[in-house]
Amino acid sequence: MPQFINTKQNLVTEAIDGMLRTAGGHLARLDGYPHIRVVVRTDWDKSRVALVSGGGSGHEPAHAGFVGKGMLTAAVCGDVFASPSVDAVLAGILAVTGTAGCLLIVKNYTGDRLNFGLAAERARAFGLKVSMVIVDDDIALPELPQARGVAGTLFVHKIAGALAEAGEDLDAVTQAANRVIDNVVSIGMSLDTCTVPGSPKEDRIAKGKAELGLGIHGEAGIEQVSFTNAKDAMAMVVDRLANHINAGSIVALLNNLGGATLLEMSVLAEELMKSDLGRRIHFMVGPASMMTSLDMRGFSVSLLPVSNGDEVLLKAPVDPWAWPPCVNVSGVNVLELPDGLTPIKPMPSQNPKTAAFLIRCCDAFIAAEADLNALDAKSGDGDTGSTLAGASRAMKGAIDRLPLADLTQLYRAIGQELSQTMGGSSGVLLAIFFSAVGDAASSGLNVVDALKAGLDRVQQVGGASAGDRTMIDALAPALDALPNGISEAAKAARTGADYTANITKAKAGRASYISEDKLKGHNDPGAEAVARLFETLDDYLKG
Amino acid sequence: MPQFINTKQNLVTEAIDGMLRTAGGHLARLDGYPHIRVVVRTDWDKSRVALVSGGGSGHEPAHAGFVGKGMLTAAVCGDVFASPSVDAVLAGILAVTGTAGCLLIVKNYTGDRLNFGLAAERARAFGLKVSMVIVDDDIALPELPQARGVAGTLFVHKIAGALAEAGEDLDAVTQAANRVIDNVVSIGMSLDTCTVPGSPKEDRIAKGKAELGLGIHGEAGIEQVSFTNAKDAMAMVVDRLANHINAGSIVALLNNLGGATLLEMSVLAEELMKSDLGRRIHFMVGPASMMTSLDMRGFSVSLLPVSNGDEVLLKAPVDPWAWPPCVNVSGVNVLELPDGLTPIKPMPSQNPKTAAFLIRCCDAFIAAEADLNALDAKSGDGDTGSTLAGASRAMKGAIDRLPLADLTQLYRAIGQELSQTMGGSSGVLLAIFFSAVGDAASSGLNVVDALKAGLDRVQQVGGASAGDRTMIDALAPALDALPNGISEAAKAARTGADYTANITKAKAGRASYISEDKLKGHNDPGAEAVARLFETLDDYLKG
Repeated sequence: MPQFINTKQNLVTEAIDGMLRTAGGHLARLDGYPHIRVVVRTDWDKSRVALVSGGGSGHEPAHAGFVGKGMLTAAVCGDVFASPSVDAVLAGILAVTGTAGCLLIVKNYTGDRLNFGLAAERARAFGLKVSMVIVDDDIALPELPQARGVAGTLFVHKIAGALAEAGEDLDAVTQAANRVIDNVVSIGMSLDTCTVPGSPKEDRIAKGKAELGLGIHGEAGIEQVSFTNAKDAMAMVVDRLANHINAGSIVALLNNLGGATLLEMSVLAEELMKSDLGRRIHFMVGPASMMTSLDMRGFSVSLLPVSNGDEVLLKAPVDPWAWPPCVNVSGVNVLELPDGLTPIKPMPSQNPKTAAFLIRCCDAFIAAEADLNALDAKSGDGDTGSTLAGASRAMKGAIDRLPLADLTQLYRAIGQELSQTMGGSSGVLLAIFFSAVGDAASSGLNVVDALKAGLDRVQQVGGASAGDRTMIDALAPALDALPNGISEAAKAARTGADYTANITKAKAGRASYISEDKLKGHNDPGAEAVARLFETLDDYLKG
Repeated sequence: MPQFINTKQNLVTEAIDGMLRTAGGHLARLDGYPHIRVVVRTDWDKSRVALVSGGGSGHEPAHAGFVGKGMLTAAVCGDVFASPSVDAVLAGILAVTGTAGCLLIVKNYTGDRLNFGLAAERARAFGLKVSMVIVDDDIALPELPQARGVAGTLFVHKIAGALAEAGEDLDAVTQAANRVIDNVVSIGMSLDTCTVPGSPKEDRIAKGKAELGLGIHGEAGIEQVSFTNAKDAMAMVVDRLANHINAGSIVALLNNLGGATLLEMSVLAEELMKSDLGRRIHFMVGPASMMTSLDMRGFSVSLLPVSNGDEVLLKAPVDPWAWPPCVNVSGVNVLELPDGLTPIKPMPSQNPKTAAFLIRCCDAFIAAEADLNALDAKSGDGDTGSTLAGASRAMKGAIDRLPLADLTQLYRAIGQELSQTMGGSSGVLLAIFFSAVGDAASSGLNVVDALKAGLDRVQQVGGASAGDRTMIDALAPALDALPNGISEAAKAARTGADYTANITKAKAGRASYISEDKLKGHNDPGAEAVARLFETLDDYLKG
């Protein structure tokens, strides 16, 4: 799988620089490229306890994305899935630590422990107060006391960050961090492995399986389980967590491991809340990509019982955008549908002349059915005639229900009828046309101007203009000529319709996808229908 | 590719409910499932112009993720990649529109235009003021005037949203939306297609190729181009955009189409800023997933020239977390490395007795090289002896540079030497041990307590305890016995080391991965080394 990178060697430094440019100016890096990759706050005066975390890259936005007021003071970034060097960690500590001291938040991996640990010693030799906590929230390997540190680490960043920001001292911040570590539990599930830059993708998850208890460095899960759907997947995850979580109300962190879609993550959020632990989950962080494993199509759930005061710490505002707000989980708020979805039926009224006129129009379309179908077959699926004829037959059948004595109401009623009886784009566009004509008429425009207002609306919604090989090519000139009488309008419509046979580069509608030679010499069926309508009316009104 | 969903039919409704539960209580939906899927603000009093957008699902967080104060008032969600129905749009309009009216922000797809257009007509029939704008920011198809609406739509949401929030009237909001639409340009590039739920994934992009000018519904790009790296990919995208963007300073929206990693997106941000248009880009939104195409591994860039007042509108705070802050783009802020990374060399000093003692220790390890290697071969790569012997030889060579007359300084100096000359975890752990002993000694502890403090630190960082089959099993009892003399300490170390032959379930270090029968009967090489050291010292001090 190719990726949007340049070289594997420069991947992390280029990504950090890109991140810094788009961080709004609150972040900087130390001048230690390529080996020392440390992101620090620029709005930091060393007056409080500094929080330094980090580890391998490939977990973005962790860790650099969480540097900022209220969370980390510095992030030390290793290569993808590789611990940063002792020198890099030391540089991070020295850059941000003042007399209040520094807490190192380290995920439980040997390389991180050792390198952060030795850097801490070297920093202490300078007289700095440095404490270190080891996060081991992963419950996937219950037989190993050396549990890994995964996304639950973010609760440590947040709660320790809020306390440090509030001016608590190093002991208090360290104690709080350890309290979180003692109580937070996490586990992940994945449907696909991740793509490590420069390496072929491992294809180890069998069809119909998911991995449960995987690591954030692409490590295999502790077991492959059957995968059926989101509900069962979340139930399995919750079942494992339930054995390890202490009592009380819970904050959940729902983490995208990188490759799940946002649709999937929202479904998983829904299943988490509907799960056996759902009633205890009062607060939620995410779903969001927070501690990823590159592009792994998976998720993890981290749970922390919420002690006194934690709610305030979890919700304290922070600068880093990568931290989603910690919100109160709510039920699904459902509002009643508004009135007005069922169209108000117009009061029928009589007008024999109007009825006869309307029936004549309908008959014109019915008579033209075969011809219009034939024309449409040149550029589409050959149903324009049948569509119009069908709507016309329905209109004739509905004639007694129409408000024939009130022209304004009639336009709207015709629009409503067409929206219900005429399929396809043309049905919608004609419904829009008549509704808009009705609006215009009700605001006092004369018939011609009202019809033109309808045409304008159709052009806006449909996106076609004159010359685009649509019914507009006949309708627009017909309406322009209409003040000079129906005969002039019919002539103009015919000229316009016939002209469409020369338009071979359609810009809108279905004909835009058809090759030029197939269109040449054939009128557009919509324009032809309009021309025939006006010609029929001309005959009718003359007769 | 399996996905974390339940059924295709319920995917969108379940995802919306999950999103609502985790939105902090500011959002609701209308009671119209399964067909009417409308997300609305709950903190909305209809006093201002309402903004309604929507379209097919599969573009999350668009559109529901942008509902909230300062952006959309309602989002109407269709099925995946399918336009919502007229009734659904109408329900959305009716639910949120007051006397100030409503602006429909519609992306340029026939289904959306028609359904939003007809819903607008039906809403107008109720006397509501409704205007509609069509976003067509995609420049991928320059020969077609019917450009698609893609991620640039978000600029319309943001700028119109800020104006509506500020109390501007419908005409002003509509005008501003149209101004944005006239000026915003977008194009996307992808390395892989998206996985539509329930459909097999199309595998149409050849190896070494990328698609340029794809759509957000998985439509193929207008061309397949050669893909080499992120730099060239971004250069190509910028080159296309440059032909369409008006003069002036620019805000860029860098959108993840769903499947690119955050590392890749940051590299692309860096390349965008280093591109030919980089100097003109003064503001940035993202990189982030904003208008996705499910899990498509691709990105899009949307550019908008920033007119007077736009900066304020773009930066106005909003409720929806899905909107990343619009930030001023900056150069990469680089801070000098802190002092202290190069360890201060201790001042050498003489003490023949200490020198002789130290040399004796080194010789003990050198003599044990072969035996320790043999033991290590039972559980590892057989180099413990060589590692210790190598470090010992280096230490002997460095003896004249050590501060032999100052014990506190000497501990630290030994730690520093070991961190430079001894590889592997054990080198780091011994360096930590001696540094911590030096710290403890400098704070006034006696030798035994200082050594114990070092051991504590090693246990914290290394994670091993007594009984874990490590050097601690010899060192801890030896230090406990040391107050009774070196002979007692040596005996205790020997007992501890021999006991490790019975420990077959290692909990830390490399031996934790070795099967029990391979460990049984063999001392841990680290513990054995400690025992030999104490035995040697016992002989030496007696002699």
